[in-house]
Amino acid sequence: MKITEIVLTPIAFRDPPLLNSVGVHEPLALRTIIEIHTDEGVSGLGETYGDAGHLERTRTVVPALIGLDVYDLNGMHAAVAAALGGTVGTDQHGLTGQMTGIGTVDRVFSPFEVACLDIQGKHQGRPVVDLLGGKVRDAVPYSAYLFYKWAGHPDAEPDEWGAALDPAGVVAQARKLIDEYGFGSIKLKGGVFPPEQEIEAIRALREAFPDHPLRLDPNAVWTPDTSVKVAEQLDGVLEYLEDPTSDIEGMAEVAARVDIPLATNMCVVSFDHLPPAVRQNAIQVLLSDHHYWGGLTRSRSLALLCETFGIGLSMHSNSHLGISLAAMTHLAAATPNLRYACDTHYPWNAVDDVVKPGALSFVDGAVPVPSGPGLGVELDRDALAVAHQRFLDTDIRSRDDTGYMQRVDPSYERKNPRW
Amino acid sequence: MKITEIVLTPIAFRDPPLLNSVGVHEPLALRTIIEIHTDEGVSGLGETYGDAGHLERTRTVVPALIGLDVYDLNGMHAAVAAALGGTVGTDQHGLTGQMTGIGTVDRVFSPFEVACLDIQGKHQGRPVVDLLGGKVRDAVPYSAYLFYKWAGHPDAEPDEWGAALDPAGVVAQARKLIDEYGFGSIKLKGGVFPPEQEIEAIRALREAFPDHPLRLDPNAVWTPDTSVKVAEQLDGVLEYLEDPTSDIEGMAEVAARVDIPLATNMCVVSFDHLPPAVRQNAIQVLLSDHHYWGGLTRSRSLALLCETFGIGLSMHSNSHLGISLAAMTHLAAATPNLRYACDTHYPWNAVDDVVKPGALSFVDGAVPVPSGPGLGVELDRDALAVAHQRFLDTDIRSRDDTGYMQRVDPSYERKNPRW
Repeated sequence: MKITEIVLTPIAFRDPPLLNSVGVHEPLALRTIIEIHTDEGVSGLGETYGDAGHLERTRTVVPALIGLDVYDLNGMHAAVAAALGGTVGTDQHGLTGQMTGIGTVDRVFSPFEVACLDIQGKHQGRPVVDLLGGKVRDAVPYSAYLFYKWAGHPDAEPDEWGAALDPAGVVAQARKLIDEYGFGSIKLKGGVFPPEQEIEAIRALREAFPDHPLRLDPNAVWTPDTSVKVAEQLDGVLEYLEDPTSDIEGMAEVAARVDIPLATNMCVVSFDHLPPAVRQNAIQVLLSDHHYWGGLTRSRSLALLCETFGIGLSMHSNSHLGISLAAMTHLAAATPNLRYACDTHYPWNAVDDVVKPGALSFVDGAVPVPSGPGLGVELDRDALAVAHQRFLDTDIRSRDDTGYMQRVDPSYERKNPRW
Repeated sequence: MKITEIVLTPIAFRDPPLLNSVGVHEPLALRTIIEIHTDEGVSGLGETYGDAGHLERTRTVVPALIGLDVYDLNGMHAAVAAALGGTVGTDQHGLTGQMTGIGTVDRVFSPFEVACLDIQGKHQGRPVVDLLGGKVRDAVPYSAYLFYKWAGHPDAEPDEWGAALDPAGVVAQARKLIDEYGFGSIKLKGGVFPPEQEIEAIRALREAFPDHPLRLDPNAVWTPDTSVKVAEQLDGVLEYLEDPTSDIEGMAEVAARVDIPLATNMCVVSFDHLPPAVRQNAIQVLLSDHHYWGGLTRSRSLALLCETFGIGLSMHSNSHLGISLAAMTHLAAATPNLRYACDTHYPWNAVDDVVKPGALSFVDGAVPVPSGPGLGVELDRDALAVAHQRFLDTDIRSRDDTGYMQRVDPSYERKNPRW
């Protein structure tokens, strides 16, 4: 079953003013939707980053994939690597760690692999989870992903979520997310305020939700010493502390000094980061992400690698829509040792989704695995057209949380470490 | 597609008197053929060990697999683990390293996984290689697997291979294998004679076949010091030295002192052996084996793990027949970083194969990937019946190279290390 055509559609969707360690989310986030068509009339979907650099790299490899068989994932990976010719992407926004050569290949390859598995599944009348070893859970638990946020974007009306700039605001946001979605775990994106304030927010969450596992993620904006102090104060409160400090060496230093498990989606983001991380015992939990790690089958292998080396497994999310949510859910459902609730930004962005409603839902904080063949989701072409038009109408071509923050607050500086 | 019936058929096939570090192959080797039948009428094949302990463990798990879906490999692995209830197998014959709990589960699970992939492939009209990521090579190179051997079994006529008890005999055997099969690499099973004699045999092979990569495998019967001495003498002659000495610590000691890459299928034979091996840099090449490592999909993950940690990948073989050869070939064809010729005992045992002729052949030392759906091989039921009758007619129920040698030479002692 040969690939005859690949269509890339860059899109933009609305995003609330979510704060993080490098600034604030702009009013629009970018993504690229991938459609693969085959000579047997079956088509498949993928979703990936929309930043200009990644979009350009993704476009670059398309000609090399035309004519390949949708089962030839090895050949596609090699073709992507060859077409990229050693290009290494950059993480300009500062939130997803250092890219490497193989990391760049894996990021570009990922959505094509997902689309090919979608096609394989449709061809066989099987959900993608069955191509990954089969369902170990019928629904995948996600966490309530809390952000400090402004009430609304500057010069706009407050959004439905309101402000969250102190412990009470964070708790209110958690309550709204949990009421609407039923989440059983909570993650707070930190690194925004001095650590003492974020510790207070976590304590307020613990009080309001005594049984919800809690996580805090300051995106590596603390020194090792600050990380240790926070970890000591939150020992017994957090299920894990995510990326308190930068790089494998820093994480290893903190890990050696604290009891709380350390998690990462920043210092270990490609296969070549694993040997030094294992050697230095730098992490106890890996937030995997099929967009980073070369798609679903390579992520399944990554899971076995983590199990082998005693590294816990959770799942990371960037701002995303329904195709990614479906892929994440199939993958998580097929991964026995994924024992933490996965992260998802979906509640923040679902309003602009480009898949037809109905296939994806949250029941008690978990997404039931779509049961249709392949990923089980279908494009809503009207919504896709609207989202593509939004992309054409905006000047945004790369995520720039820092620049946006500086346009609002010219005194803002990006600093790492900040505390 | 649910599993409705599983048939296990223990068989015996003729084996020449091949010598190794613990004795000599008995006149018959054992194996178990597995057939899985489904409610949709598609059936699949697997092949595994035939020793009594393994056969019993394999029988034990069968009831737990009936009713499962052939795509539910995760569920099958869990069911096997639960049914075994922590049983740990033993390696009585002393050639395949220490078994662990997970290693035992993976060995029992493996043939069922292979049979389910055979069914999936047939169901999709796709060769198994396509379910593993697709073909990176059209044919899989194997090595000429040389053994010191007697001219024939005691009290029997010499076999067609003749004796190989000195360098000239070894070279003659290599020439016959290479003439018949076209092999482009050579492996000598050592550990039989004092190391100086085996070094001589390797030098004779180097002279006779100046361009063939060479390997020597004494099955861990040397001390670290002896291993270092041999490695120094064969530096630049061997592509790798396989299991010169026992266990991870011993291999790590040798690896630190020599330049030749060390390979193993004895000290790293299950996933829990990998962390200490990586930590101690004990091995440079892993001889993978889907019979050890939980089947084909787990072996693909193992390959990515090896690539990640800079461990080279080759493939191990026990005495086997065509179903295993087909599975090995599909796996190797789908594994990009398998860059050494694989081992196979097939030429020694092919005469008693239980698959129909035609699907498997050697062309220039390589087996073209069977192109039919699934594994691409079919049972020859007459041959299976003969092989099963041979099993019923023999007293052999477990491999016992040492016992057989002692019946021939009562003074023989098993020793490790011997030199």
